[in-house]
Amino acid sequence: MNETKTADSLSEALAQGGAAVDRLLGELLSGEGGQEARLFEAMRYSALGGGKRLRPFLVLASSRLCGVPDDRALRVGAAIEMIHCYSLIHDDLPAMDDDDLRRGQPTCHKEFDEATAILAGDALQSLAFEVVAHPATHPSGDVRSDLVRALAFGAGARGMAGGQMIDLLAGDEFPDVATIARMQRLKTGALIGFSCESGAILGQAGAERRAALQHYAHNVGLAFQIADDLLDVLGSAEDIGKATQKDEAAGKVTFVSLLGVEKAQERARLLSDQAIGHLDIFGEKADHLRAMAKFVIERRT
Amino acid sequence: MNETKTADSLSEALAQGGAAVDRLLGELLSGEGGQEARLFEAMRYSALGGGKRLRPFLVLASSRLCGVPDDRALRVGAAIEMIHCYSLIHDDLPAMDDDDLRRGQPTCHKEFDEATAILAGDALQSLAFEVVAHPATHPSGDVRSDLVRALAFGAGARGMAGGQMIDLLAGDEFPDVATIARMQRLKTGALIGFSCESGAILGQAGAERRAALQHYAHNVGLAFQIADDLLDVLGSAEDIGKATQKDEAAGKVTFVSLLGVEKAQERARLLSDQAIGHLDIFGEKADHLRAMAKFVIERRT
Repeated sequence: MNETKTADSLSEALAQGGAAVDRLLGELLSGEGGQEARLFEAMRYSALGGGKRLRPFLVLASSRLCGVPDDRALRVGAAIEMIHCYSLIHDDLPAMDDDDLRRGQPTCHKEFDEATAILAGDALQSLAFEVVAHPATHPSGDVRSDLVRALAFGAGARGMAGGQMIDLLAGDEFPDVATIARMQRLKTGALIGFSCESGAILGQAGAERRAALQHYAHNVGLAFQIADDLLDVLGSAEDIGKATQKDEAAGKVTFVSLLGVEKAQERARLLSDQAIGHLDIFGEKADHLRAMAKFVIERRT
Repeated sequence: MNETKTADSLSEALAQGGAAVDRLLGELLSGEGGQEARLFEAMRYSALGGGKRLRPFLVLASSRLCGVPDDRALRVGAAIEMIHCYSLIHDDLPAMDDDDLRRGQPTCHKEFDEATAILAGDALQSLAFEVVAHPATHPSGDVRSDLVRALAFGAGARGMAGGQMIDLLAGDEFPDVATIARMQRLKTGALIGFSCESGAILGQAGAERRAALQHYAHNVGLAFQIADDLLDVLGSAEDIGKATQKDEAAGKVTFVSLLGVEKAQERARLLSDQAIGHLDIFGEKADHLRAMAKFVIERRT
């Protein structure tokens, strides 16, 4: 019974957090009647086109654990979502994954054109840093600079972009589980890690809490990715709003292709349990993050 | 005689500043033996492949006017150069300008491939913000955050990326001088403007000095662009290391096609003179910036 209650309250919290970050993204991307209006349209199209807003939720939940007001956490959540959306726009380009469909809608370069999609991604990345560095995010310039550095590190060559590079190259050879794990740790783990860590930075929390959130994020990030690979095999395009069984068709090596469905499910569960274990020092207050660790491996979309 | 001396000293200062920023870029981009090594290679290929380093020079010169140590200015200069190089990589892509040659070398997507070039540009943008936000750039977190905000604004949809969008759309219609001027103010002017403004931010200079550097940069930026258009018409590919007379071949509207060569030259000279006029409050110390305002309209490459 308690579990059902927490799950309900998680989906409620996810919906509330998602709506709040959508409102803020709408404000931050409201724009411009000038000749460059098309660029703002493309940015809005991709950033406001739905999505689960898992990362902003992680920022909100970890921020609340560290005594941070929601309005500050939401700004960081919106910035992370801009980085995430820019990476999806560029990832979908013909030279990269060449995807026509994203969240059930035409991808940015299909709805607009390739050049506009490249620029929209570029401009979303810039705006993310502009938002984080703004005094409304935190009164302390040191805290804002720390956030910028950690976000830039997570997005860059030693984080997300580096992981995408490994992913591209992995197509040419036959990677092992360790390579796939490292690729995912960079490609999706770095930004999920920053989502949780940002709560600790915003709340100027001690090293122990910061490390606990980092470890939680590391495990949740990997569990999330294995669940994603499983969905590609087990889910339907209708449910998840993008093409499925693409990995196999593309001859792509994933956790599932390397481990098989059952062992992959087992590993995702183990990672989810480990993530929950790291939250002990926060007590009951961390129930949302606990529920999230379960949700990421049980979700159907 | 004095003029020759200043010009000599300018080319010396340009060479010294360029060498210093190259060294720093080399350090900041030194990297990674991991599976993502190719990404670092592509970033280095594009960021260390020569270039006039005009923007870092402007940061250095304006910083010296505001009492800022060179090592701080150089970090900002390196970051701006990363943003500039990322924009060139993406600009050269087949979906954008489709260029094969840059600074006399194959463009990034020709030397590597399109996907790697997209990611190298993305990662250079992230790294620029990481470098600016690092405590080595300035002890004050507020100053670092101000720099991040101004750089992000200059690079983003209301700056460089917005100007590129207008440039793309201008191909479909017949723009007038005002549209071309606004496009250039965003596309190249915003980053040149930040290059000069950053000296004032780093030096926590008063409003008058900051405004003087902004106005100087505005005029120099536009003069620089007109000179660029003139070089495309009057220069040779051998001299400038990229294809010339591309604008006309592409039916592109430029200051030169709208105004004619003579009137364009006149306007560039006027802007250069105006730029120099804004430097009066700095006295003799601003001689390098004065020489630079002359150099941008007299350069042959």
